[in-house]
Amino acid sequence: MTQRHHVIAIGNALVDVITTAEPVFLADRGIAKGSMRLIGADEAETLYTAMGPGREISGGSAANTVAGMAALGARPMFVGRVADDQLGRVFAHDIRAAGVDFVTPASTGGAPTGRCLIVVTPDGDRTMNTYLGACQELAEADLDPGMVAAADILYLEGYLWDPPAPRAAMKKAIQVARANNTKVALTLSDVFCVEGYRADFQALLAEHVDLVFGNEHEVCSLYQTDNLDVAMAELARHSCTAVITRSAAGAVVIEGGRHHVVAAEPAARVLDTTGAGDLFAGGFMAAMVEGRSLPDCARVGCIAAAEVISHYGARPEADLKALVKARLG
Amino acid sequence: MTQRHHVIAIGNALVDVITTAEPVFLADRGIAKGSMRLIGADEAETLYTAMGPGREISGGSAANTVAGMAALGARPMFVGRVADDQLGRVFAHDIRAAGVDFVTPASTGGAPTGRCLIVVTPDGDRTMNTYLGACQELAEADLDPGMVAAADILYLEGYLWDPPAPRAAMKKAIQVARANNTKVALTLSDVFCVEGYRADFQALLAEHVDLVFGNEHEVCSLYQTDNLDVAMAELARHSCTAVITRSAAGAVVIEGGRHHVVAAEPAARVLDTTGAGDLFAGGFMAAMVEGRSLPDCARVGCIAAAEVISHYGARPEADLKALVKARLG
Repeated sequence: MTQRHHVIAIGNALVDVITTAEPVFLADRGIAKGSMRLIGADEAETLYTAMGPGREISGGSAANTVAGMAALGARPMFVGRVADDQLGRVFAHDIRAAGVDFVTPASTGGAPTGRCLIVVTPDGDRTMNTYLGACQELAEADLDPGMVAAADILYLEGYLWDPPAPRAAMKKAIQVARANNTKVALTLSDVFCVEGYRADFQALLAEHVDLVFGNEHEVCSLYQTDNLDVAMAELARHSCTAVITRSAAGAVVIEGGRHHVVAAEPAARVLDTTGAGDLFAGGFMAAMVEGRSLPDCARVGCIAAAEVISHYGARPEADLKALVKARLG
Repeated sequence: MTQRHHVIAIGNALVDVITTAEPVFLADRGIAKGSMRLIGADEAETLYTAMGPGREISGGSAANTVAGMAALGARPMFVGRVADDQLGRVFAHDIRAAGVDFVTPASTGGAPTGRCLIVVTPDGDRTMNTYLGACQELAEADLDPGMVAAADILYLEGYLWDPPAPRAAMKKAIQVARANNTKVALTLSDVFCVEGYRADFQALLAEHVDLVFGNEHEVCSLYQTDNLDVAMAELARHSCTAVITRSAAGAVVIEGGRHHVVAAEPAARVLDTTGAGDLFAGGFMAAMVEGRSLPDCARVGCIAAAEVISHYGARPEADLKALVKARLG
């Protein structure tokens, strides 16, 4: 008998290659500090050659999110494509070892497993250069509709709206979720995603999404405004719950015309901000499936985010359950 | 024109896969905590499956040593074999990015790149399970005799005395070094190496080695004694310089009948002791090629070792040059 999952997440299956550098390393290459951009195989090679020694740690936005959920006791499944190569085996090992169900078959003969070349500057800011590789080959056939129908939440990574085959898989998953009372959650992922798919994302929020995550820049970009209040007013018009992360300023949850403001969790140190938003979403949803209040969901999100920025890598290292218990009971 | 190197190191080209676990994880599998052992492909697979999420960071004992030397301003070359696969490219990238010359061609069609599955327990102790893979395919033909002849030091990793082809390469390198006034340095690597090759290592020390590194357990095993004083007296009979590392008790340098005792460097924290001995040797030799006194060579070794045990992974992360300058000028 297959167990029901709290969340089915569809996202990029990436291994992060993390290095440190001074901001001039980025400036010299015309790379905007703090951004995420997609790069091809050739640029991935050139940039990797120029980078300092790395550490490889499994990543991927939605994959980080569900790793955080599993650490908090939820039962997640991840759907995403790796290739049948060493980095693909690293990804599959790590996500399973984190307690996440992962059964998407690895592709053979195509592009290698995707990777994200991450440059962390001394201020903890991360600049991500993503070579999607096999991630783009995720297809509708990789989705088990029965699993989506049985889950509490379908979680979609905005980044994966870009390549066509995974987008089709996500559209199908949304259909199944809507027909089966599975909540649909979406992360806006990045300003470049919002810029590229503004109309799609607006339509999703208006019609299909129950829960949306975004940072200030992403929600402002969604409504083409510089004023967060304007963006929040737009979000409040939808029936979905909107969660806006504001880094050190904490988070705002908008639901049914009400705003809940939650302060950020003090971080022991900020070494590498990679995964902060991912782990916030993971903490939020893990608390949600436990039936906690919306402000407490945001608090658990802040606790998970504070843990992940205290070390290199975007997957939790400390005992998140114990951290939450110590703070919220 | 090819540049002369301060050191040519011959060693295992490994990528470390680092995970954390409680000691019971090792006890349940009959693995001696703190040990290094060689494992085959099947056991590597089984153990990896059982391990928690990992982080992949380039390792290999002599490779770590020369990465430390490069960080301290020396010009090292590393000789070791990876396969033409993703982990092999990770190893090659990282060691070159660390400032080490590395030109050994990758093997194709044979075993994959070697890896070391490292379980770090909460006390910072590391237990290493090494799948040698392509490392064992290093051969005499991979050695450039002219490079060995021109170098200050030939550094040999004891671990690599085990597989026959690399041992033959090391024997050839010793010949070239002896004929060309290149110092021969050897690390005893591990008690299992000493137990397996005690006669070979004793003969090397008596006839060919100018500088030997070992910890207390290794030098005691070399002379089959429980008494470090007995082992030190045996070492003092040879004309070589012997350097004994004693963890928190610092190091002892024996040369020409004299003992120099150096205290350990206080470590900010002990997170993962992997690479402590490797970085000690790297610091020692980097100071030696700069012409520092033997006690100062040991002090630089202690500074480099203290840095590497403060974080996961066996390659330096902080600015070793600055650390040494701050302590010793």
